Amino acid sequence: MSRIVLGDNQYGKAETRLVRVERGQDRHDVVDLNVTTTLAGDLAATHLTGDNSGVLPTDTQKNTVYAFARDGVGEIEDFALRLARHFVGTAPAIRRARVRIEQYTWERLAGHSFRRGAGTRTATASCDGENAWVVSGLADLVVLNTTGSEFHGFHKDRYTTLAETTDRILATAVTAQWRHAEPRSDDWGTSHAESTRHLLAAFADTHSLSLQQTLHAMGERVLTERPEVAEVRLALPNKHHFLVDLAPFGLDNPGEVFYAADRPYGLIEGTVLRSGAPEPGLAWW
Amino acid sequence: MSRIVLGDNQYGKAETRLVRVERGQDRHDVVDLNVTTTLAGDLAATHLTGDNSGVLPTDTQKNTVYAFARDGVGEIEDFALRLARHFVGTAPAIRRARVRIEQYTWERLAGHSFRRGAGTRTATASCDGENAWVVSGLADLVVLNTTGSEFHGFHKDRYTTLAETTDRILATAVTAQWRHAEPRSDDWGTSHAESTRHLLAAFADTHSLSLQQTLHAMGERVLTERPEVAEVRLALPNKHHFLVDLAPFGLDNPGEVFYAADRPYGLIEGTVLRSGAPEPGLAWW
Amino acid sequence: MSRIVLGDNQYGKAETRLVRVERGQDRHDVVDLNVTTTLAGDLAATHLTGDNSGVLPTDTQKNTVYAFARDGVGEIEDFALRLARHFVGTAPAIRRARVRIEQYTWERLAGHSFRRGAGTRTATASCDGENAWVVSGLADLVVLNTTGSEFHGFHKDRYTTLAETTDRILATAVTAQWRHAEPRSDDWGTSHAESTRHLLAAFADTHSLSLQQTLHAMGERVLTERPEVAEVRLALPNKHHFLVDLAPFGLDNPGEVFYAADRPYGLIEGTVLRSGAPEPGLAWW
Amino acid sequence: MSRIVLGDNQYGKAETRLVRVERGQDRHDVVDLNVTTTLAGDLAATHLTGDNSGVLPTDTQKNTVYAFARDGVGEIEDFALRLARHFVGTAPAIRRARVRIEQYTWERLAGHSFRRGAGTRTATASCDGENAWVVSGLADLVVLNTTGSEFHGFHKDRYTTLAETTDRILATAVTAQWRHAEPRSDDWGTSHAESTRHLLAAFADTHSLSLQQTLHAMGERVLTERPEVAEVRLALPNKHHFLVDLAPFGLDNPGEVFYAADRPYGLIEGTVLRSGAPEPGLAWW
Repeated sequence: MSRIVLGDNQYGKAETRLVRVERGQDRHDVVDLNVTTTLAGDLAATHLTGDNSGVLPTDTQKNTVYAFARDGVGEIEDFALRLARHFVGTAPAIRRARVRIEQYTWERLAGHSFRRGAGTRTATASCDGENAWVVSGLADLVVLNTTGSEFHGFHKDRYTTLAETTDRILATAVTAQWRHAEPRSDDWGTSHAESTRHLLAAFADTHSLSLQQTLHAMGERVLTERPEVAEVRLALPNKHHFLVDLAPFGLDNPGEVFYAADRPYGLIEGTVLRSGAPEPGLAWW
Repeated sequence: MSRIVLGDNQYGKAETRLVRVERGQDRHDVVDLNVTTTLAGDLAATHLTGDNSGVLPTDTQKNTVYAFARDGVGEIEDFALRLARHFVGTAPAIRRARVRIEQYTWERLAGHSFRRGAGTRTATASCDGENAWVVSGLADLVVLNTTGSEFHGFHKDRYTTLAETTDRILATAVTAQWRHAEPRSDDWGTSHAESTRHLLAAFADTHSLSLQQTLHAMGERVLTERPEVAEVRLALPNKHHFLVDLAPFGLDNPGEVFYAADRPYGLIEGTVLRSGAPEPGLAWW
Repeated sequence: MSRIVLGDNQYGKAETRLVRVERGQDRHDVVDLNVTTTLAGDLAATHLTGDNSGVLPTDTQKNTVYAFARDGVGEIEDFALRLARHFVGTAPAIRRARVRIEQYTWERLAGHSFRRGAGTRTATASCDGENAWVVSGLADLVVLNTTGSEFHGFHKDRYTTLAETTDRILATAVTAQWRHAEPRSDDWGTSHAESTRHLLAAFADTHSLSLQQTLHAMGERVLTERPEVAEVRLALPNKHHFLVDLAPFGLDNPGEVFYAADRPYGLIEGTVLRSGAPEPGLAWW
Repeated sequence: MSRIVLGDNQYGKAETRLVRVERGQDRHDVVDLNVTTTLAGDLAATHLTGDNSGVLPTDTQKNTVYAFARDGVGEIEDFALRLARHFVGTAPAIRRARVRIEQYTWERLAGHSFRRGAGTRTATASCDGENAWVVSGLADLVVLNTTGSEFHGFHKDRYTTLAETTDRILATAVTAQWRHAEPRSDDWGTSHAESTRHLLAAFADTHSLSLQQTLHAMGERVLTERPEVAEVRLALPNKHHFLVDLAPFGLDNPGEVFYAADRPYGLIEGTVLRSGAPEPGLAWW
């Protein structure tokens, strides 16, 4: 007879907002983070009987994030690793930990004055007590090409009405995550800046026949230029811009006036990776 | 030498907003959906060379959603299945399809007049050309118990400051998905209504020692009561309500005045399933 | 020579989230509020020199909301009045106060268990130390008529392409505020429920030639039925539903399949009032 | 006997999303706008009887925005003025028009490739057929000072628990609107850039004893430096950053580790204006 059993489970504290001020002699720096911690392990007891002896409270996880920040944050990949490694084994039942961090951009106005910029840097560290994995990334990076994008030669069926085009606007909000071959680096900051630069460059200089082609070019560029990266995952919404028909008003519209639609949108997702790279393990947990 | 290769990939049209009016003799009905279609298959060409001959445009997917609605929507599980089965093989390269639907609630005010209600019903159908899988669910179901919730006996480390409690508010926004053993049903509507009823009843009548225990009770209840369900996945944010310290104002606070916090929040995720149930296949793709 | 001077100014605490549990013998009640307090008066000093001696901190305003809740909340109009009257004169510089409250709906599942419903009740009380004004209202009330709505006979110019219609979907998210003739009531709860009922009824049973006509009918209905109401202000976004052209697929579409658009949307705003009603004073401050 | 009458009313099209590509020889420019048009006049007929002969449809307003963009947008103040002046008198009943525009920032990556930046430029033009008024502004400009902000000497009552401080984080999301003395300019672009620069500079270099003082300094700076500006209105949420108590973990916290709260937040609003400036007329309609 069939039984009802507990399957995969995990828990943690989501969106702990941490702002760290680094008070230098002549100027300050500010680190602005959103930290989400997730733990898993032998947690059947709390599910089945409410015995919480294996549970490290999510409140404690939050406290730990703040306490660890006292010693400085540094690069978010390192901070995520420090936290993930700490959490495994804090309670005997905890066997795995994942720490995801979003870092918001601040641009300096003056010595201790800042303005929030666009785009978000992300990092995820996962750990099982023996091994660790690091994924870097970015989110909310909105980019647009006004030309250099075509879409034609696609499959047509009885529901196809889309006109083929050799010139359209291509716009997307990039969410990218790239897995590092090793969970260590001398310079996460440069690695992130360079990977970001290559993603943007590939978006800008790829003459695109499909958003899939652009996606692949972006991932390939990072892998070609950054040997420390083993795999790149991209999610690219196709933010449609429709040419407005101005003919009813006696006007032409040679690719100049567009309506930017909200929904629906295309959504293109794909992975580009290095063959022979280390196994991902818990990197994408 | 390592090569750079294309990994998993998929694409589709997200958030096609469809409203279907059923015009009866004496009264109308309204079906309000948000439909996301996702396709996968042999799509290397568009990624590598921009050859789109295998690509069914996302615009066509949107058109198909609207055209299929002409014949009536029915239960969203059936509508998702019809669409998913249709998409596999529309273009030779397309081998898999997934259709996710959110249905918004409308309550009747009068014969053709409606008011939007709370909560969202969801359904996902996946198909590989041979087999199909159906997952039903709900989202945005916000529930709260004012008592009957404790949290104590948890693991404590040097970062633990949380006080143990034998009476707290328990509040969450339920996201639940349950996998059906078979991709067919005579009555998806009753199945959904009953599973929802059992989830709510378990939330309400479980004396909770942890949100994990409540989660398990909710999943177990559905599996116990609904034989057609093979697996339940739940994500429960712990929406913290903190007792306000009124002592500085010379007032006590016997569990009456609370501050409802936004962030951070706990996040409890877990699966409860029937042992021996059919394999999930692409159900959770 | 021109000088630079301080003009109108105000300050306060926005969005204090208060949940109040009423612990009855057999069952509990829950009151879930979002409270925004705003003060004004002789506050030039803090603007010009940073002398804060006239400033009641916004933190104190928040504390006051929680402390006052200890004695029970009651109807939100009364709670807003109590708070507004308190704030005037707390510091000598404070001459005016406004308290806005949003109340979220909870439906009972069981004795101490609740489910969040749709729609938000609102109240604003304003006070200048002598007089007080009360505005009740609602927000996020989304309603839809599947028929009984026409739009034709409108002015046409060279930019007009809209087709006239004698049957369309009419959908809107009602924001309504109604000013009470007097800042006192024996039964705010019934008054609110009845005004809401009349708004809904007028939306449902008005055969509409324009959303403006529906707006006017809604306001007029409340004023006709509720003598305690002096003025009704409505903001009605016209949430467009476009009939999908299915002809390319060989299908007709007799008012059944619609695309629900996000943006742009029409926005119809208007006031209906009782002639000879008391002056609004600070009611709409 | 009292009658029920129509009061103030207005209508229009909200959030028309317009993207305009300027195709230069060597490079493109992109203008990304969100346009909201609002009309008022003798519109009693549509409210009372559904006679729409005086109504210029909101769909026509949207069309007009797109058609006018065909000739180029230029500075958003000018585009708003062109549209507002056009709408007055398009239908005989239309007596007043207001056009509000939000412009999103795009930074060039390459000749025809762009990245969305932070912050939004705004402009509002109002017109009654004889006169016109222009208000420029900005929104979503998030700024933060890590020091140089104090708050003490405030009024205390029985509900005050806030500790005085001589060093806190000051963070806000600036919404600013400034009214021009004249509805014409040779260089709206420079005017906007300079006013923005002065707002930021005043935020950064004001040693702040209250957010009100910072607000006043920001408005005063613009008025001092930009003679074309008659009035500045500012809304500054006080985005609280609370020092985390690390003492339970045996750690001090010398102004380094903060919790960034979402709600509640302070909200400071104020006007700074030039005495003897022209009357605002419909500028703030």
